[in-house]
Amino acid sequence: MAPAVILVAPQMGENIGAAARAMANFGLGDLRLVAPRDGWPNPRAVPMAANAGHIIEGARVFGTLAEAAADLTHLYATTGRRHDMVKPVITPEAAAAEARAAGQGAGFVFGPERSGLLNDDIALARAIVTIPTDPQFFSLNLAQAVLILGYAWWRGGMAAEPVRAEPAEGQAPATLADLTGLFTHLERELVETGFLYPPHKAPSMIRNLRNMWTRANLTEQDVRTLRGVVTALAGKRALRRPSDDAS
Amino acid sequence: MAPAVILVAPQMGENIGAAARAMANFGLGDLRLVAPRDGWPNPRAVPMAANAGHIIEGARVFGTLAEAAADLTHLYATTGRRHDMVKPVITPEAAAAEARAAGQGAGFVFGPERSGLLNDDIALARAIVTIPTDPQFFSLNLAQAVLILGYAWWRGGMAAEPVRAEPAEGQAPATLADLTGLFTHLERELVETGFLYPPHKAPSMIRNLRNMWTRANLTEQDVRTLRGVVTALAGKRALRRPSDDAS
Repeated sequence: MAPAVILVAPQMGENIGAAARAMANFGLGDLRLVAPRDGWPNPRAVPMAANAGHIIEGARVFGTLAEAAADLTHLYATTGRRHDMVKPVITPEAAAAEARAAGQGAGFVFGPERSGLLNDDIALARAIVTIPTDPQFFSLNLAQAVLILGYAWWRGGMAAEPVRAEPAEGQAPATLADLTGLFTHLERELVETGFLYPPHKAPSMIRNLRNMWTRANLTEQDVRTLRGVVTALAGKRALRRPSDDAS
Repeated sequence: MAPAVILVAPQMGENIGAAARAMANFGLGDLRLVAPRDGWPNPRAVPMAANAGHIIEGARVFGTLAEAAADLTHLYATTGRRHDMVKPVITPEAAAAEARAAGQGAGFVFGPERSGLLNDDIALARAIVTIPTDPQFFSLNLAQAVLILGYAWWRGGMAAEPVRAEPAEGQAPATLADLTGLFTHLERELVETGFLYPPHKAPSMIRNLRNMWTRANLTEQDVRTLRGVVTALAGKRALRRPSDDAS
């Protein structure tokens, strides 16, 4: 169950819409508004929500944060400001992990655009979430803060991914036989040109060349292309006059 | 050295400004523009850049991505679209880690607002970076994509942080002596009330109470407050008439 997003006293409808759109990017759907300045529904929210209109339509309005979060157990108050409250300050990733562990009942709370959350609202949260930024440029707008929290939430739910993925879908990777065919083809041509000289260095030169190809993550089609290249180059050389070779 | 941010054929000046602001949040300062649609400088970029005007002023303009990235070694092409190119697809965190390992010479490349990067530009990159999103709602605007890449970059440079931080600055955490004073004070009062009964359960009751306080991350001031509470409650009890105690 994804956390609720609770906007306390949001001012501009456009920002509510942009926040809803950011929520949709990252699988958050439960939008709650506490005393939105311009009332609700607010037609200005709709264009900025883009294709997240369903989140705007499903948003619920409350008078206080305590009412908005009455059914929630784990609230996290997002703020970039320093507070003198004794409250743990955690990262978005830590908040997302706690929210995930909490199961149902988590909520990410955001304050009004300019002033941020009041201490009385922060007091209801288990922790303050502060988005790590360059301390000289810590200002993020409402939708950006929702975006980062949402991203942290979505990332936390992903299985650890391989750092490097496979070639694009639909393209068969080259088999070792494909590669070996390319290697022997190329090396045969290179022997003929005298490139692999002196002979005692040939094995390491060949190894380096092979390494180059194997780390290139080639497809079957790539190998066919490269063999065509080798053939073409070898053919051109064969057709050249001897004087060209010296140039 | 932070990676360059290269915007290829950006359309709206406002988006360039918003991208610059997102860069500033996360320690990125080297903005390069490839053939911006409305020319450069673009006054529309300035208000959206907010206090990142220095990034706008320092932006450099090029005719092609190859020119913009001529001094760079590690390019990462950000795109949410599926491409049929044979190119690793990696996460923002992986790209940030590779860029950090590369030292100087990394660049994050972003395409025009609507169409995204062309394959000819992607071909210059080491990898495609795709921001993980709900597959049904994958659309991010330019500044949001810059924001997420910037965040991944900034986060990657942070030392692993404790999941839970210390109390707010300026408030001294309670020492063990403070806590022990509170414990013995409270427990003495509880013994007098007969709360710690039956006697064989008293040790575990005391342990549970102490656990409650120690995990609350109390400050010196909290401890003074709590001791005042205990004193007040105990004093009230001492002043009560016996009949009140039974209620």
